[in-house]
Amino acid sequence: MPQAVATLLNARWIVPVEPEQRVLEHHTIAIQDGRILAILPQAEAATRYQADTCLDLDKHVLIPGLINVHTHASMTLLRGLADDLPLMKWLQDHIWPVEARWVSRSFVRDGARLAMAEMLRGGTTCFNDMYMFPDVVATAAQECGIRACVGLIAFDFPTSYASHMDEYLTKGLQLHESLRADPLVRTALAPHAPYTVSASALERIGRLAEDLNLPIHIHVHETAAEVEQFQAKHGCRPLAQLEKLGLLSPRLLAVHMTQLEPAEIETLAHTGVHVAHCPESNLKLASGFCPSARLDAAGVNIGIGTDGAASNNDLDLFGEMHIAALLGKAVAGDPTALPAARVLRMATLNGARALGLADQIGSLEPGKAADIVAIDLCQPETEPVYHPISQLVYATSRHQVTDVWIAGQRVLANRELMTLDGPDLIQRARGWRKKIAIERRA
Amino acid sequence: MPQAVATLLNARWIVPVEPEQRVLEHHTIAIQDGRILAILPQAEAATRYQADTCLDLDKHVLIPGLINVHTHASMTLLRGLADDLPLMKWLQDHIWPVEARWVSRSFVRDGARLAMAEMLRGGTTCFNDMYMFPDVVATAAQECGIRACVGLIAFDFPTSYASHMDEYLTKGLQLHESLRADPLVRTALAPHAPYTVSASALERIGRLAEDLNLPIHIHVHETAAEVEQFQAKHGCRPLAQLEKLGLLSPRLLAVHMTQLEPAEIETLAHTGVHVAHCPESNLKLASGFCPSARLDAAGVNIGIGTDGAASNNDLDLFGEMHIAALLGKAVAGDPTALPAARVLRMATLNGARALGLADQIGSLEPGKAADIVAIDLCQPETEPVYHPISQLVYATSRHQVTDVWIAGQRVLANRELMTLDGPDLIQRARGWRKKIAIERRA
Repeated sequence: MPQAVATLLNARWIVPVEPEQRVLEHHTIAIQDGRILAILPQAEAATRYQADTCLDLDKHVLIPGLINVHTHASMTLLRGLADDLPLMKWLQDHIWPVEARWVSRSFVRDGARLAMAEMLRGGTTCFNDMYMFPDVVATAAQECGIRACVGLIAFDFPTSYASHMDEYLTKGLQLHESLRADPLVRTALAPHAPYTVSASALERIGRLAEDLNLPIHIHVHETAAEVEQFQAKHGCRPLAQLEKLGLLSPRLLAVHMTQLEPAEIETLAHTGVHVAHCPESNLKLASGFCPSARLDAAGVNIGIGTDGAASNNDLDLFGEMHIAALLGKAVAGDPTALPAARVLRMATLNGARALGLADQIGSLEPGKAADIVAIDLCQPETEPVYHPISQLVYATSRHQVTDVWIAGQRVLANRELMTLDGPDLIQRARGWRKKIAIERRA
Repeated sequence: MPQAVATLLNARWIVPVEPEQRVLEHHTIAIQDGRILAILPQAEAATRYQADTCLDLDKHVLIPGLINVHTHASMTLLRGLADDLPLMKWLQDHIWPVEARWVSRSFVRDGARLAMAEMLRGGTTCFNDMYMFPDVVATAAQECGIRACVGLIAFDFPTSYASHMDEYLTKGLQLHESLRADPLVRTALAPHAPYTVSASALERIGRLAEDLNLPIHIHVHETAAEVEQFQAKHGCRPLAQLEKLGLLSPRLLAVHMTQLEPAEIETLAHTGVHVAHCPESNLKLASGFCPSARLDAAGVNIGIGTDGAASNNDLDLFGEMHIAALLGKAVAGDPTALPAARVLRMATLNGARALGLADQIGSLEPGKAADIVAIDLCQPETEPVYHPISQLVYATSRHQVTDVWIAGQRVLANRELMTLDGPDLIQRARGWRKKIAIERRA
């Protein structure tokens, strides 16, 4: 008697990510209660299970949902507002004034939802966010059914979200409390950077992370200038400061890391710090080159992030994997560095590890959540298929993503968003653009 | 009385490329006899012209067709065959043996047609090719209606196409003769590289280029190792050798150019040599970094190429523009380097100049050929639109290309290929994959 299950996905290929090089052909994923029940040959699945929904994905490869370990999701509303500018001019004359004038609960909601539409259509099922009003992002994620880790942001200076460190942290801890039982949305402490959050506040955040068992999401060593200025002011490099404050541990996710000395790479490796590699943002802002292949060889866990759409200008992890793989080789001077399977792992299982979620997501394994992405490879752009993993990293566009499941819920079906109203989101984005652009011209 | 024209395209935006920063809103392109007759406001077009076909592209931006200045089109059949390998192992153990065993007229035809399908779907209307059996590529391009410059390839060693230099050149000149009257397909002399074509043959090819008024398409300074080996053998760098042989002129398109000393950049600038910048291939093979921003600042004309699909692994000029813009900034250490409009110009008008076709294609101007690409920007990935040119280079995927015209012929209509049979091409590609993969496993 066949066992009743919710969903069976019969796929041409399945790339489970664990183990790293495996490609299964003509296998089936059985889903029950939002989790992967089994992965087995199609013929066997047909006799063993009876499903409410059975899909034949005979042109498709299934992979674990992609995990974007560094976003400022709501900044989609500022996509392409100001490009090709020096970093400080970009921030001081464009991004910061526009944020100061416009960032509000409704801005954050509309921007985050546009980001979620973009991410789901591109195969991203989980994102690690840092922005004002994380409570609004959390609510939007719950409504949309996307997995998120919202950052409990903190600065030394006021924003429209909070006026001082105590208020940032109080609001953050309230949000953390309210999400304790949430199946999809988690929190991380998110002090912006060592140069924008004082040592005493960072120490306090470090203790909170221990007490509450939370990750810490922070920008570290994004540019050479930032490191030099910090050193001139504090007598040490930012990473050394974090070490002194006791923050270097597997709880820490250090974003960017373009400036690293060999001893610092060793320190990251033996303290278990995770790195969020954001190659497109680093290139576009000419921030420097993260030594990703050397970090990987040293055993440092690397996830991949897009950064915000204002400095990228997309939230496209397929594009980001492609560039991470290519740039990793060029920076290492070695075409064998960062092979395709390793980069796919960075964008999935390594990302899950960085967020403390590796027992739940990041690979296709029985018992893990059914966060699954289907990609149609049978198009002129990705034929012929010698090696599906190569094809995913070096030739596939996010527009080939057809279906996405998160915790077993189908949130994208034949490229149709099931939990978001795309045309409404676009109308809202245009409304923000008009307001912002008109005032800037005035 | 309105004038009768073949086609009117009413577009939300038009980016003519010339002048570089211009964006026209709510304008119309009138097409007659395969050429652009006029570009004017929509209201004016409606009274002045009556068209057989009138399209409302109210979500779209129109740009000149993209020009890929360096391809080995037929290598699409080897896409992803062997990745993440050292350059020499990749060539000697994988690409060359497979080419020696399989490259034939039918291989080249099937591979080139698959490439054309990929290029048309991605907004590329003209490509500059170098591969064996250029006559086959030329015929396929004529049938497909794509613009091409086929390289009259030459090596010192035999291939399945020709057994010695005389045969390469004789076949090439015959092909050149047969294409004299062709409206879409041109030829270039294509000696593979200074290290694979002797000085005497290069000198002969230089004279032919003068006599026949043809461009010369050649790999130069792709890797540091290649330059060093050449220097050890010949006592000078390859570029100096080309200079001695009299080949440095506006006829020369030098591909890759990752190894350049300041004096060499000056030489390129004052001799008018064009550079084919292939950022993805250079990154993936860890060949080095082309100093694209310095070349551009020195006044060197730079076009953009993908190289072959075996080392890229796609023929995607949107992806290539994106990486060219980002990498140009990072290599220059300057986020203002290679702004979006300049990179779009490289992939269009500069490419046309490099091929000697700037009077015909590369920008949307009255009198030029109607080689036009429509891109739908009204999708979550590319909203809101502050600056269409930024959006095209930093956020747009080739999958947003909806329609393509070449010399006024609509070759892609709502993403449908009008002159190629996509499913048939895919079947043929799979047939080649099976044969090649099975023999490699045996």
